Amino acid sequence: MKICKVKGNVWATRKEAALKGQKFLIVVRIDEGQKEIGPPFVAVDNIGAGVGELVIVTAGSSARKASDESLPVDAAVVGIIDSMDIDSGS
Amino acid sequence: MKICKVKGNVWATRKEAALKGQKFLIVVRIDEGQKEIGPPFVAVDNIGAGVGELVIVTAGSSARKASDESLPVDAAVVGIIDSMDIDSGS
Amino acid sequence: MKICKVKGNVWATRKEAALKGQKFLIVVRIDEGQKEIGPPFVAVDNIGAGVGELVIVTAGSSARKASDESLPVDAAVVGIIDSMDIDSGS
Amino acid sequence: MKICKVKGNVWATRKEAALKGQKFLIVVRIDEGQKEIGPPFVAVDNIGAGVGELVIVTAGSSARKASDESLPVDAAVVGIIDSMDIDSGS
Amino acid sequence: MKICKVKGNVWATRKEAALKGQKFLIVVRIDEGQKEIGPPFVAVDNIGAGVGELVIVTAGSSARKASDESLPVDAAVVGIIDSMDIDSGS
Repeated sequence: MKICKVKGNVWATRKEAALKGQKFLIVVRIDEGQKEIGPPFVAVDNIGAGVGELVIVTAGSSARKASDESLPVDAAVVGIIDSMDIDSGS
Repeated sequence: MKICKVKGNVWATRKEAALKGQKFLIVVRIDEGQKEIGPPFVAVDNIGAGVGELVIVTAGSSARKASDESLPVDAAVVGIIDSMDIDSGS
Repeated sequence: MKICKVKGNVWATRKEAALKGQKFLIVVRIDEGQKEIGPPFVAVDNIGAGVGELVIVTAGSSARKASDESLPVDAAVVGIIDSMDIDSGS
Repeated sequence: MKICKVKGNVWATRKEAALKGQKFLIVVRIDEGQKEIGPPFVAVDNIGAGVGELVIVTAGSSARKASDESLPVDAAVVGIIDSMDIDSGS
Repeated sequence: MKICKVKGNVWATRKEAALKGQKFLIVVRIDEGQKEIGPPFVAVDNIGAGVGELVIVTAGSSARKASDESLPVDAAVVGIIDSMDIDSGS
């Protein structure tokens, strides 16, 4: 799972019918120094994450396990990070 | 899901029988400044997106959930973006 | 799906039994100017693509939908490109 | 499967209900010289790996086979490396 | 599928129970000039490939089709390359 920061929201009126009512967030991956890396992408959120929070994002088919197996989604927020402990040694 | 811009169309007469009648779009991923990044790729579209529009593209097995589970597709347009709100703060 | 050019063939006598009789092509991804990008890779082909042709390649689990669900393949040629129309404007 | 080093832990109180009780590790991919490459990511661990250990990490849908098919996880520690033997020739 | 060279072996005593008895190889992707690219990774092998041989590696969920659907593996050797014929013309 990727460690990401929530950056904002995206709205799409015309969309797959199955996606109506889903909350989409714009997130960006961060590195161990919380520097943003790569372009932002969109993840579905059922946890209630807010802009600026660090989150754990699951990608691929497993993202459907965090929403509904039938949804055409490939990324989902699965946790809001309270804290991280990263060893800087070796 | 990736944030992409629709760049054009692609035609293929000789193709998997299951793909007949499907609409294919050429799309390219964009970053937070709407700069195009990476090479273009092909996504199936059932939403009716047009050239120049910003769209949300689902990749991998989940793309089949936006079309038909039996289709050999790995990318699908699942929404046409009305607006985005991206926090520029750290 | 990726836009690729067919570059050649690969032969493997010792292989998974399920792959016997499958036609493998070496392909390479191209960008909007048809410049080759990244290393070549192998895709199964049931369409009859030839060296030099531009093709649409589906990756991941969806590649199995273009051959047989039980095959251990992660890339498949799903169409031979007749023409592309890519908007060069922003 | 990726060869990774365990770097630390991550805590998330607010998370998908299905993930409660799962142990998450922060890992980073390493190259043949054990140099860390790319940003760290999160993997579920049912093996009992500790910080500083080298591990084998399975990604994508197969990560669910190392935990529970219903979990929204896309990376799992599947082995703790005792030793590697990498040919430096050719 | 990726074109890879077998680089060595990896041993892991503590691992997912389902992986016991599986043979793991360390492989690295190569380009059209057989230059190694990217970091090495681990693939399960049921074909009997040896160090120095060029192989075809299937990634993702399809790797399970080359072993057992229940195994937590995301890469598998599916063929040992006898020869390749790559067109060097544009």
